[in-house]
Amino acid sequence: MQLFYEPNFDSSSQLITINAEESRHISKVLRKNIGDKILITNGSGLLAEGIIKSNHPKKCEVEVLKFEESVLPKNNLHIAIAPTKANDRFEWFLEKSTEIGIQEITPILCEHSERRIIKQERYEKVLQAAMKQSLNTFLPKLNKLTSFSEFIYSDLNNTKFIAHCEDGPKEKLSKVVAENNLIMIGPEGDFSQSEIGLALSKDFNPISLSESRLRTETAGIVACHTVNLIHSL
Amino acid sequence: MQLFYEPNFDSSSQLITINAEESRHISKVLRKNIGDKILITNGSGLLAEGIIKSNHPKKCEVEVLKFEESVLPKNNLHIAIAPTKANDRFEWFLEKSTEIGIQEITPILCEHSERRIIKQERYEKVLQAAMKQSLNTFLPKLNKLTSFSEFIYSDLNNTKFIAHCEDGPKEKLSKVVAENNLIMIGPEGDFSQSEIGLALSKDFNPISLSESRLRTETAGIVACHTVNLIHSL
Repeated sequence: MQLFYEPNFDSSSQLITINAEESRHISKVLRKNIGDKILITNGSGLLAEGIIKSNHPKKCEVEVLKFEESVLPKNNLHIAIAPTKANDRFEWFLEKSTEIGIQEITPILCEHSERRIIKQERYEKVLQAAMKQSLNTFLPKLNKLTSFSEFIYSDLNNTKFIAHCEDGPKEKLSKVVAENNLIMIGPEGDFSQSEIGLALSKDFNPISLSESRLRTETAGIVACHTVNLIHSL
Repeated sequence: MQLFYEPNFDSSSQLITINAEESRHISKVLRKNIGDKILITNGSGLLAEGIIKSNHPKKCEVEVLKFEESVLPKNNLHIAIAPTKANDRFEWFLEKSTEIGIQEITPILCEHSERRIIKQERYEKVLQAAMKQSLNTFLPKLNKLTSFSEFIYSDLNNTKFIAHCEDGPKEKLSKVVAENNLIMIGPEGDFSQSEIGLALSKDFNPISLSESRLRTETAGIVACHTVNLIHSL
């Protein structure tokens, strides 16, 4: 069972027009034919099962047979994480966190950040591919690269946590997982003292993720899985 | 703090002779000098702090100042997992599981395996690098590629689990984590019906790792982290 992604339809749509990239894949790579059945998600919880009416390589069209609507996940997980120097490591994090379960991701720019420019569109594609591969119908929201202080001062809803490696009082994340979580993960050189101080002054709870020191992208996956696992117990 | 790996020393060693590859790194890449302090692990729990006596690019020598011996981890985790078609995905699993905590890894050859030949030495290097980066002094044991049936019939010590995607009774791993665990993870096409039947007949407990379907390497990390997290609660 293969899933395709096209954001521009809702439960009132009778015909779905598929974007160029996905159309090329359907028509040229997979060589699907008129009359073939196909599954499409809009990334917002809606799954459409339909029949291909046109397999034009830039503009496939699908007649909807039925819809299946998924309920929004009960718990909201937002991870704000400093993109790693090596792009593939950060893309692993995007892919794996989508497989395991995440609702929102903010790439953050910190004092010790090794990567200061990101490939937003490429990251979007990684999230879309991971969503489809997991047969998931919710696309994690990917925010723009945001500076640490701008992020800290923004309107943040979930229970707030910061994972840092400095000495100081910390709780194990597994002990303090809330209904809705926002977890900050720093760059390879950790958050700076002033960044940690600022976060604590804005009611971020300091946490530890593991006994051993984890790479940034590993910390991201560990945080993501810890939240999902604790909620499933 | 940087850690180096040389297996051939024990707590009776006064002088450590470092292997060629690590010597080259110390001498040519990092350009360490005679008199510099250095930390070395033998991968079996022993950490040596010493002074460089010779920085020969093929044969560094270190005079030991002191040793630190770590206790064997209380719990033993062994994951038997089918190497993925894409090598980088499997190497990602080796690296992340070492960061999170694992004692033994057996690459297994299954009916639906997409990879039937593995780069054993390359995988060893990935484990060594991950151990050093984590400042860990225990190198996970990497066994040779073993066929599914040969593995099932071998002498296996830990509480045995098999994670499969077929229908049938399964417990969540998080509910049944034991002191010492052996978890089998199948290839992208899952274990075959007969492989599952054989495992169940040899007292492997069927488990699920997640609500959603995970890639092989993600399943490996989820299993590894689930065990580590449950033990830390």
